[in-house]
Amino acid sequence: MHDEPNDHFVRAGAFSIEEREAVYRAIHTRRDVRDQFLPDPLPEDVIARMLAAAHAAPSVGFMQPWNFLLIRDAARREAAWRIFSKANDEAAEMFSNERRDSYRKLKLEGIRKAPLGICVTCDPTRGGAVVLGRTHNLRMDSYSTVCAIQNFWLAARVEGVGVGWVSIFHQHDMRALLGIPEHVEVMGWFCVGYVDRLYDQPELALKGWLQRLPLEQLIFEEVWGKVSGDPDI
Amino acid sequence: MHDEPNDHFVRAGAFSIEEREAVYRAIHTRRDVRDQFLPDPLPEDVIARMLAAAHAAPSVGFMQPWNFLLIRDAARREAAWRIFSKANDEAAEMFSNERRDSYRKLKLEGIRKAPLGICVTCDPTRGGAVVLGRTHNLRMDSYSTVCAIQNFWLAARVEGVGVGWVSIFHQHDMRALLGIPEHVEVMGWFCVGYVDRLYDQPELALKGWLQRLPLEQLIFEEVWGKVSGDPDI
Repeated sequence: MHDEPNDHFVRAGAFSIEEREAVYRAIHTRRDVRDQFLPDPLPEDVIARMLAAAHAAPSVGFMQPWNFLLIRDAARREAAWRIFSKANDEAAEMFSNERRDSYRKLKLEGIRKAPLGICVTCDPTRGGAVVLGRTHNLRMDSYSTVCAIQNFWLAARVEGVGVGWVSIFHQHDMRALLGIPEHVEVMGWFCVGYVDRLYDQPELALKGWLQRLPLEQLIFEEVWGKVSGDPDI
Repeated sequence: MHDEPNDHFVRAGAFSIEEREAVYRAIHTRRDVRDQFLPDPLPEDVIARMLAAAHAAPSVGFMQPWNFLLIRDAARREAAWRIFSKANDEAAEMFSNERRDSYRKLKLEGIRKAPLGICVTCDPTRGGAVVLGRTHNLRMDSYSTVCAIQNFWLAARVEGVGVGWVSIFHQHDMRALLGIPEHVEVMGWFCVGYVDRLYDQPELALKGWLQRLPLEQLIFEEVWGKVSGDPDI
C-alpha cells in the first residue's frame, strides 16, 4: 500500500490532568544549576533518553543542525573551566564597581563539579545552501538548536538531573579545546549531573540580581504596547 | 527571619515513571502544525497557562527579554499572511528548479486558519548595557526567548493545542504591521489553535523533504568527530 502523509495522522487531544501537571511541573521547577551537582555518574540509558528528547526538537527545514559532545574527562573539564574563568574575569570588568562585587560573588558554573559536560553545537551548513524556513532569518538554525537544548533541559528535570548553561567563553577557545570546526557555532557548555535539591525560584532572583517581571506587562493585544483592557486603537 | 537563598531549597529528585512518560510524550509527539487547526477559540485560562510556561523559561542574566503579542483580529492575520506570502515567493525563487516545485507544494503556515496568532519578540535592551552571561555571546538574549518558545510549544501540546512557527517574513514588514520598535527582534509568528490530530512524524519527513538523521551520528565523545567505540585519541 502506498504510504501517504494522511496515513500518518494520529489522535492528538489534550493530555489528562495528571499528565498535564507533570509537564507543567517540569517546566516550572527546572532550574539553571551551578553548584548542586552530585558526583554520581549518569547511566547511559538516562543520557540516551535526554539526548533523544533533544533530537525530537523542531528544526527549521528539518535540518537538525545540532551535535552533542559528551565530555567526562576531568582534565578536559578542567581546561574548559580555565576557558570560562578567563572570560569570566573579562566579564566582571565590564560591570560598574558596585555591580562587579555582586557579580564576583555569584557562582556561575559547575564545569568541574558536574560529572558530565555536554558541548552543544550548531552546524549552519548542514541543510545545504538554501534551507527551507531560514531564507529570511539566518539565525533559525541556532534557534532550532536552542529548542533541542530546552527539550534536553526538561528531560533532565524529570530524570532528577540538573543542567546549567555556561555561555561565558570565547568561541575560538572552546573550538580549539574540543576540535570543533571553524564554521560550527558553539551554543554552550552544559554542566550535567544528578541533583537532589533545587532552588524554588531562579537563583539570580534569590540572590538579588534581578527579579521576575510581571507576566501581564509582557503580553500585548493586537499591537505592541496595548495591554488587555486598553481601548481599541 | 532573614530570607536566605538556602532557605529556598526544595527536593528535586526524578519524577515518577508516569510523570516522566507524560513529559516525554509531550516532547516526542509535539509537531510544527501548518494546517490542522480547528476554528474554536482558545479559552483565556489555556492561553494563560501556556504563556506562564513560556515565562518560566531560563533567561540569560534573568533578563526575560520576551514579549507576546496576541493577534486575534482576522484582518490583521490576513495582513500578516500577505507579509508571509511575499517573502515565501522570494524564498521559492532561491531553490533550484526541481526543489522549487516541491517547495511550492508544501503548506508552510496556518496564519489565517489558526484563530490565534502570537508574535514573540526579544528586546535586547531589557537587561541594560551589560547582561550577566551575555558578555561573550550577544545572541544569548534571543536564545533565552527560544527557550520560552519551546516551553510554550510543549505546554500547547498538553492542552491539545497545535503551534506552528512561521519564520518566512521580513523583520521590517512584521514590525510595521504590529508597531514593534526598531530595536526589538521579531522571533517568529506562531499560529495557535486547537488540533485533534497530528502527524506521527515531522511533516517534512513524511512529505519527502528531508529525513531524520540517526542520533548516534550526532553524538561525539570528548572531542568533535569521535564516536562511541572509537579508539582513544
